[in-house]
Amino acid sequence: MSERINVAVDAMGGDNAPAEVVKGAVEAVRESAKIKVFLVGREAAVKAELAKYDAAQDQIEIVDASEVIETAEPPVAAIRAKKDSSIVKGMKLVKEGRCDAFVSAGSTGAVLVGGQVLVGRIKGVERPPLAPVIPTAKGAALLIDCGANVDARASHLVQFAKMGSIYMEHILGVKNPRVGIVNIGAEEEKGNALVKETFPLLKACKGINFIGSVEARDIPAGEADVIVCEAFVGNVILKMYEGVGGTLIQEVKRGMMSTLRSKIGALLVKPALKETLKAFDLEQYGGAPLLGLKGLVVKTHGSSKSVEVKNSILQCIAFQEQKINDKIREQIVQQEET
Amino acid sequence: MSERINVAVDAMGGDNAPAEVVKGAVEAVRESAKIKVFLVGREAAVKAELAKYDAAQDQIEIVDASEVIETAEPPVAAIRAKKDSSIVKGMKLVKEGRCDAFVSAGSTGAVLVGGQVLVGRIKGVERPPLAPVIPTAKGAALLIDCGANVDARASHLVQFAKMGSIYMEHILGVKNPRVGIVNIGAEEEKGNALVKETFPLLKACKGINFIGSVEARDIPAGEADVIVCEAFVGNVILKMYEGVGGTLIQEVKRGMMSTLRSKIGALLVKPALKETLKAFDLEQYGGAPLLGLKGLVVKTHGSSKSVEVKNSILQCIAFQEQKINDKIREQIVQQEET
Repeated sequence: MSERINVAVDAMGGDNAPAEVVKGAVEAVRESAKIKVFLVGREAAVKAELAKYDAAQDQIEIVDASEVIETAEPPVAAIRAKKDSSIVKGMKLVKEGRCDAFVSAGSTGAVLVGGQVLVGRIKGVERPPLAPVIPTAKGAALLIDCGANVDARASHLVQFAKMGSIYMEHILGVKNPRVGIVNIGAEEEKGNALVKETFPLLKACKGINFIGSVEARDIPAGEADVIVCEAFVGNVILKMYEGVGGTLIQEVKRGMMSTLRSKIGALLVKPALKETLKAFDLEQYGGAPLLGLKGLVVKTHGSSKSVEVKNSILQCIAFQEQKINDKIREQIVQQEET
Repeated sequence: MSERINVAVDAMGGDNAPAEVVKGAVEAVRESAKIKVFLVGREAAVKAELAKYDAAQDQIEIVDASEVIETAEPPVAAIRAKKDSSIVKGMKLVKEGRCDAFVSAGSTGAVLVGGQVLVGRIKGVERPPLAPVIPTAKGAALLIDCGANVDARASHLVQFAKMGSIYMEHILGVKNPRVGIVNIGAEEEKGNALVKETFPLLKACKGINFIGSVEARDIPAGEADVIVCEAFVGNVILKMYEGVGGTLIQEVKRGMMSTLRSKIGALLVKPALKETLKAFDLEQYGGAPLLGLKGLVVKTHGSSKSVEVKNSILQCIAFQEQKINDKIREQIVQQEET
């Protein structure tokens, strides 16, 4: 079975590790015979969790790693010092070619630093962006970059647009994805220095479907498929999604519980509402890929439960089968030559 | 009645001018005898609208202005060319001291440029920020800056923190308002170059209650009273409020209408829900003040109805009575001297 896609998984990462991570890995291999998972973490703890399930022996392997990088640790120092951590060991499996991808719910900083330092960038890629899929009224969009590179330059944003287009087209199946740059108005002359510099570059860029500026207001409505922005802005957008959504849903619930009449109504609307709000759940898509690396690195929420871990692992199949990295290489090299 | 607060109002500004603007002015003078409104705009059109109401003659005056600055016009050129526009004439009333404040639902760009060029900055204020009040789960917060100054510097953000604190304390009555800087993580070492430079300055700043970084996720929950950020980020936050809120409410409604059972439930929860969602309506607070000018300029939504116009006008009373500009002057001068 040399055709199998090998995914290293950080068994110690996230708030619910190792229990939910191991459960997610088991669910993933049950769902797809194409996957082999390498659970990287403290062997005894991982083994104990794994013993709870009856999973295909040949699809799950434990790789012992005695250390854990905590969320609060300074990432660069942690990556350097903790050679036997689940993140460093998992990333090295990718670097050495033993695995195709690495999935972690651990420290975002350590995953970003490790991706660049240990896995390494594809030649020509200036900065690897973190690109989560976010729900919209029309389906989903890719928010790129969302926290990997503060103080980005225009050339970085152009690469984000290209990599994002490839991802949306071949992983999410969006034909000719609409690329928009986040701006504070729809007109071309609007924006800060970075946006003003990037706009004409995107307009001139071949191979992407650039539709111009997108105001933050229009993102949830689904006005673009690839939302290009620098990391600080992307992070604010992602967090506002969570914050406004969370607070509003809480207030809606509180409103429904405020009178006897509304309480009865709440019982009746609950099932339908649950279905609707599920479509707006950020976690349904699995983790965010860190694009432009020699291998795939996926960062899932720190609060991930097994379903998100499973989706993050399964995401690696399409990434591999669609040869996303070959396509990125082609696009970036093409850019270098023009 | 020399004690009256004189408010110039752009009768031609916004999607619903002059009808809703005139109605809002009438409602404002009915609600407060302290106010005198100067409706600036095409006399015949304004007079025709005013004739529909029985308003105190001595509280409303029409100031003829033959031109209108459209939203799509380049602001600087428009302010220069259209000397007889409602925005230019209204701002001049403030500059000349005939009015204390100017309220407009017209072109944001023209209002921002006009504020700086025609009304002028308080001595020492580097950049006047646009600062809307946004709803939170705990009440309200001031988002400063929200679109006036792209590519801001650290010293600007420090002034925003001071001006915002004065506004929240004396207009909204929040004692010792908590000032937070928008960041992509809670730790002090996180952030882009601007935030890293601003953070220690805010920490060292006397007279404000700086609580550190605020992640966008925590803004709707009400974690800070004064949300300091540069205009691009502020604009994204404001637009995400509108976008996520709007889309989510639409989806909730759609969910409720999806089955017969949920439709019946929807009828029962509707009144309670309406009440809750009203608290999250961005327009309830009236317009956003442009702070740091020699006089008050308030920008209300282009889509303002009479109630928002009324609230924007009434806001000017507290601003004048609380001597906000004197307090800003004191704080800024104090900063200059230390």
